[in-house]
Amino acid sequence: MTLEKEDRLILLTNDDGLYAGGLKTLLEVMEEFGKVVLISTTESMSGMSQALTVKTPLRVKVLEKNEKHIVYACNGTPTDCVKIAISQLLNRKPDWVVSGINHGSNSSSSVLYSGTMGAAIEGCLYGITSVGFSLTTHSRSADFSACKKYVRTVMQMLTQKPLPQGICLNVNIPNVEADKIRGMKICRHAKGSWEEEFEKRKDPTGKTYYWLTGVYVNHEPDATDTDEWALANNYVSVAPVSVDMTAYEYLETMKERLKQ
Amino acid sequence: MTLEKEDRLILLTNDDGLYAGGLKTLLEVMEEFGKVVLISTTESMSGMSQALTVKTPLRVKVLEKNEKHIVYACNGTPTDCVKIAISQLLNRKPDWVVSGINHGSNSSSSVLYSGTMGAAIEGCLYGITSVGFSLTTHSRSADFSACKKYVRTVMQMLTQKPLPQGICLNVNIPNVEADKIRGMKICRHAKGSWEEEFEKRKDPTGKTYYWLTGVYVNHEPDATDTDEWALANNYVSVAPVSVDMTAYEYLETMKERLKQ
Repeated sequence: MTLEKEDRLILLTNDDGLYAGGLKTLLEVMEEFGKVVLISTTESMSGMSQALTVKTPLRVKVLEKNEKHIVYACNGTPTDCVKIAISQLLNRKPDWVVSGINHGSNSSSSVLYSGTMGAAIEGCLYGITSVGFSLTTHSRSADFSACKKYVRTVMQMLTQKPLPQGICLNVNIPNVEADKIRGMKICRHAKGSWEEEFEKRKDPTGKTYYWLTGVYVNHEPDATDTDEWALANNYVSVAPVSVDMTAYEYLETMKERLKQ
Repeated sequence: MTLEKEDRLILLTNDDGLYAGGLKTLLEVMEEFGKVVLISTTESMSGMSQALTVKTPLRVKVLEKNEKHIVYACNGTPTDCVKIAISQLLNRKPDWVVSGINHGSNSSSSVLYSGTMGAAIEGCLYGITSVGFSLTTHSRSADFSACKKYVRTVMQMLTQKPLPQGICLNVNIPNVEADKIRGMKICRHAKGSWEEEFEKRKDPTGKTYYWLTGVYVNHEPDATDTDEWALANNYVSVAPVSVDMTAYEYLETMKERLKQ
């Protein structure tokens, strides 16, 4: 891959590992926009949030190189992938960090647990235009073809109107046939949480172990300005994410309270 | 441990593992406030953010039980600890989720990577009063005695004036002698990021591996309303954290832009 000055340099990653269909689809669309450096996790890293690998060393392998892209595998988390690519593998800062397409929704509070969004948030912390894409099904054989159009639209929109510093996008695409998708909606993340159930089992020696399972509960099912509503109504949800987690709406009240 | 109706039930966790001095200190202070269920990670889980364990089963062991507390060890992340305690170990929802005291600062953008804060954010998603505490040194032999007073003050404040739903606290304590601490400041998280360096080494077979290192850079060193400023000036920083990552300040602009 020769990178000319005028080429757009795109860093692509995901959290479902190198062989995920969603990653392949996103690579295809990104090659329409520029030269792609793809760095994926050796294993699936779902639910890894913005975790960093601090206790074990990271390794990186080049797997493929052609005129349009380079493919790397890294044994770390999606956030590690972004960090090591920018710090060690790239000659210049990428123009975009794009993550996904995740197999499974990252709407509402799932943005907090998502490895896909962890990578996008990491890109954003570097001051780079960053987007995480997800399709609302966990199926490994999911059909990502309907996603392409919306990935293109989002990236074209960002080309014309860049995001402010400190904001990246969380884009979720409903898992329905292309002609059922009613368009895009800019939304906030719905307030909701996972109600854990944990499957309690016994191992062959009689010892207890647990598998994390759970059901997502939308705490505001009637609100129509949320990503959950958009997805349930067959819209692509586009939520701006702030990497600054300060609860600004409460900051002044709290300062007043401390004085009392 | 007998839990009476009138007892305050406190869930305590951390990300430095069971034998961390910061955890011991926080346990001591929490016992002044109620009955404590302590669940810590078997190993250190620094930098695990709000990661979930989805690929391996979780195991929990009871290590200690007396009138004041129960101690559990769990092989998962701090967020797993909170989930499994609430879902499987406790008879009722805890009144507080308290995490730390972390060995190392979790100010500014470090809140995004922090396992300590991951646990506090998880507690907050359950609708529970949640706070993460950190001391600004990574030393295993750090002196946490100066922290006690501020942990007490913060928890007393919350008893009198509860936090709104969806907001938890990120409390960082400067690593200086008790009489040097100038008080508490309610602050926002400074805008800043980690500039990665990665130490590149060769293993005995000649293959390259990398260790993540890095230097924190404060992007707004002159701002006096940030946690970084507070800590640098020997104040305890108290930052309210929103578990809703939506960039509300940009939402309407973005909706307008989509229409154009």
